[in-house]
Amino acid sequence: MDLSLYIITDENLTLEKGLVEKVRLALEGGATAVQYRAKNKTAKQMYREANALRKLCREKGVPFIVNDRVDLAVAVNSDGVHVGQEDLPVEAVRRIVGWERIVGLSTKNLSQVREANGLPVDYIGFGSVFPTGTKEDATVSGIEMLKEAVKLSIQPVVAIGGINLSNIDRVIETGCKNVAVVSAVFSAEDVLTATKKLKEKLKKG
Amino acid sequence: MDLSLYIITDENLTLEKGLVEKVRLALEGGATAVQYRAKNKTAKQMYREANALRKLCREKGVPFIVNDRVDLAVAVNSDGVHVGQEDLPVEAVRRIVGWERIVGLSTKNLSQVREANGLPVDYIGFGSVFPTGTKEDATVSGIEMLKEAVKLSIQPVVAIGGINLSNIDRVIETGCKNVAVVSAVFSAEDVLTATKKLKEKLKKG
Repeated sequence: MDLSLYIITDENLTLEKGLVEKVRLALEGGATAVQYRAKNKTAKQMYREANALRKLCREKGVPFIVNDRVDLAVAVNSDGVHVGQEDLPVEAVRRIVGWERIVGLSTKNLSQVREANGLPVDYIGFGSVFPTGTKEDATVSGIEMLKEAVKLSIQPVVAIGGINLSNIDRVIETGCKNVAVVSAVFSAEDVLTATKKLKEKLKKG
Repeated sequence: MDLSLYIITDENLTLEKGLVEKVRLALEGGATAVQYRAKNKTAKQMYREANALRKLCREKGVPFIVNDRVDLAVAVNSDGVHVGQEDLPVEAVRRIVGWERIVGLSTKNLSQVREANGLPVDYIGFGSVFPTGTKEDATVSGIEMLKEAVKLSIQPVVAIGGINLSNIDRVIETGCKNVAVVSAVFSAEDVLTATKKLKEKLKKG
């Protein structure tokens, strides 16, 4: 499970037709994990999109993770599911998906990181590290708290929130090995090059 | 599986604190099945509410069905799940919940009823039979089409949409054995009496 360059889809940044193609380019550029996230679609639409992405990720040997909807994760036979603090409790998620699938949990402060250490999760997301346009109401933790989170967590930490080419070095300097990006890849005119540049930074780090 | 008086919760008609109590009164009044439906809550909130309702329904020996969220249905160990045409496809739902749980599907026209005859469902909802305030954009099928649906369907049909004490007789006259109600029970000042009166109509029918 390599979560070092973890890309998350965004329905506002990709039209359905462009979604698979953009993810394909990001994978070609070196993305190591894909999360399908959609908030304003019907489950039927999500099922169709997630099935297409799952197929692509399977071909590329990259883990495919579904956000929030555990039923969708099982329905498309994803490699994992990612939930937030307001989603189904992680213990319930684990009962549904079993131990073969990856379970990730979003955390935004050290208290949640500490709690996650006692939960049946395979990794945690931590952030928002920087302000982000994708989730405008997200609490910003800052780089120092990320550093603490990485020390505190017994699970791999994926930094998330406003990370892009101009600030990824600061994330890497905290000791965090994994970054999740949305806009930095999917808003780019040239998804392939944008992903490659992030990848280079991670390799150097 | 007795779906004859099938009550569906509505987050706009019940505060969280009143929800379990209102369902308890409806069960005392003769409701034979309960569906938990919520569209604007977090999964965490739904998990809490659905767990409480499931416990109550189990005590009363009445099937408890979760709307839309198949993961929630599994998480709270409900007796069944109900999905619409825009939710996860019924085949995918069946793969997740297995054959022990009830699977219901909403239909709104005869073409969907015909299609449902070939799907792995245990019952269908049909409607909106009358105009309804709960789903203002719902297509109204009318009583005549319900009659056709009941003839056409190989599964039990649950009539839904705007059914109340003043029009339930017209539903019963079509040959339909099952009615689903939301407002007719949950908007009532006196939930117990409102349910009892509907129950009497069904018994006579």
